[in-house]
Amino acid sequence: MNKQQLVASIFEKKSYLCVGLDTDISKLPLHLKEIPNNIVAFNKAIIDATKQYCVSYKINTAFYESMGVKGWEAMEETLHYIPNTHFKIADAKRGDIGNTSSHYAKTFFETLPFDAVTVAPYMGEDSVRPFLEYEDKVTIVLGLTSNKGSNNFQQLFLSHLHEELNMVPSIIHPDRPVKLYERVIEKIATWGNTSNLMFVVGATNAHELENIRSIVPHHFLLVPGVGFQGGSLQEVSKYGLNKEVGLLVNASRAIIYASSKEDFAEEAAIIAAQYQVEMESYLVS
Amino acid sequence: MNKQQLVASIFEKKSYLCVGLDTDISKLPLHLKEIPNNIVAFNKAIIDATKQYCVSYKINTAFYESMGVKGWEAMEETLHYIPNTHFKIADAKRGDIGNTSSHYAKTFFETLPFDAVTVAPYMGEDSVRPFLEYEDKVTIVLGLTSNKGSNNFQQLFLSHLHEELNMVPSIIHPDRPVKLYERVIEKIATWGNTSNLMFVVGATNAHELENIRSIVPHHFLLVPGVGFQGGSLQEVSKYGLNKEVGLLVNASRAIIYASSKEDFAEEAAIIAAQYQVEMESYLVS
Repeated sequence: MNKQQLVASIFEKKSYLCVGLDTDISKLPLHLKEIPNNIVAFNKAIIDATKQYCVSYKINTAFYESMGVKGWEAMEETLHYIPNTHFKIADAKRGDIGNTSSHYAKTFFETLPFDAVTVAPYMGEDSVRPFLEYEDKVTIVLGLTSNKGSNNFQQLFLSHLHEELNMVPSIIHPDRPVKLYERVIEKIATWGNTSNLMFVVGATNAHELENIRSIVPHHFLLVPGVGFQGGSLQEVSKYGLNKEVGLLVNASRAIIYASSKEDFAEEAAIIAAQYQVEMESYLVS
Repeated sequence: MNKQQLVASIFEKKSYLCVGLDTDISKLPLHLKEIPNNIVAFNKAIIDATKQYCVSYKINTAFYESMGVKGWEAMEETLHYIPNTHFKIADAKRGDIGNTSSHYAKTFFETLPFDAVTVAPYMGEDSVRPFLEYEDKVTIVLGLTSNKGSNNFQQLFLSHLHEELNMVPSIIHPDRPVKLYERVIEKIATWGNTSNLMFVVGATNAHELENIRSIVPHHFLLVPGVGFQGGSLQEVSKYGLNKEVGLLVNASRAIIYASSKEDFAEEAAIIAAQYQVEMESYLVS
């Protein structure tokens, strides 16, 4: 599925919900703990229960890698179970020198048939380009993340000085220094287009979404942090929606661990449906 | 193997060479292309041929992931073949919110018995801390990388303004704005110690090593970019060596692809031996 098909699906379902499959073996419902291939059984039940309310699934690679080879098998089996009507994101946050990034791009776009992968920006252009070379796939680069540590570096102000030395002037905020995350988004937006490039923007910084929309008015934003991390769907939608919707809001723990009992899938469906109904209200208004 | 044992091994072998196992199936010698489990066969031959000249092996996860489940099996088998006399690095460049980073730390420190893993800094403190919690393991955070894209963000000057707003003043370069990579190294150095924390510093920026040594005089630096990427071992050693040696210089392609014929392992040994001899000369002088 490419971005255009994703947009069509969003308007059809009146939902921009992404369900995050951060499946932690230690948090499985008790009745699943003893059965073989339980991670996959859990994921399949969650997918069956939520697919009518969401347009996308996001697989967090860390939770599968931590189980080694068996985890990668579970990731592969889960990925193949997600219907092709849904946008499939590998939340992998990879990024390395060009030669190595090419191998990561191959991992998630060829070996595993994901539609999109998250990428870390620190190593710059040649670490991101190999992903963007897959024109029908989507590269989702970290902009402003939802965690407390986003203050350490992403929120730092850059010097005006560097603009004289080695950069074109920033078009944003001529009245104050630009922050690192603003520069990252502004710069990386010039490497791709609104079809093959999206940005991760944490929901816990919803008040910054208005600012980010002034930098990238037309790009899709993948927004984690709603639900368990405390972000507000209403705020995110208020500042983030654009003509193509332009948002994919992810909830992981709030949905997949809605219940720790045998009714986990039913409860996950209830929470996912609540998100869909709320999203529909923002799309209509 | 912990850092103290690594230092002992470096002095014993008079080598601070790390051999990078960036094994690309498309670059295997012709006679290995058709045999089963050829990646592992290649790696074992390289390890047998080079282990007397190096103190460490670095497995680049991208090259294994790109082959899917079979690649992870090959990575695991390779890792277990590396002697415990050698420092085992997962070059994975992971980093995510705390809950997810904990799973990455588990992946490389428990599920796979690596001694160290490379970590990306963009997401800040709570993305790095879960790795540092393994006190006998080593977290190697990206400082200044060896690729061209390191200019995009790592080399940007920060504003003095932010120091008033949200940061303690920098102890380095009171006369000019601090660069992002300098701040990253300076800040992250406060989260760990010289035993559980190292930094990646690209050899193609050898003239910056003197500067980096003023920020972290006592930390080990993992230096990629010598050999194929054009970095100079002499320059790196001149500016980077400290009392504990403090350097792990990595060469990957220059060693493992020294020959594309049946003599690949012998040729790899010859190149690795050359590095060791040159390193010994810098340690003695």
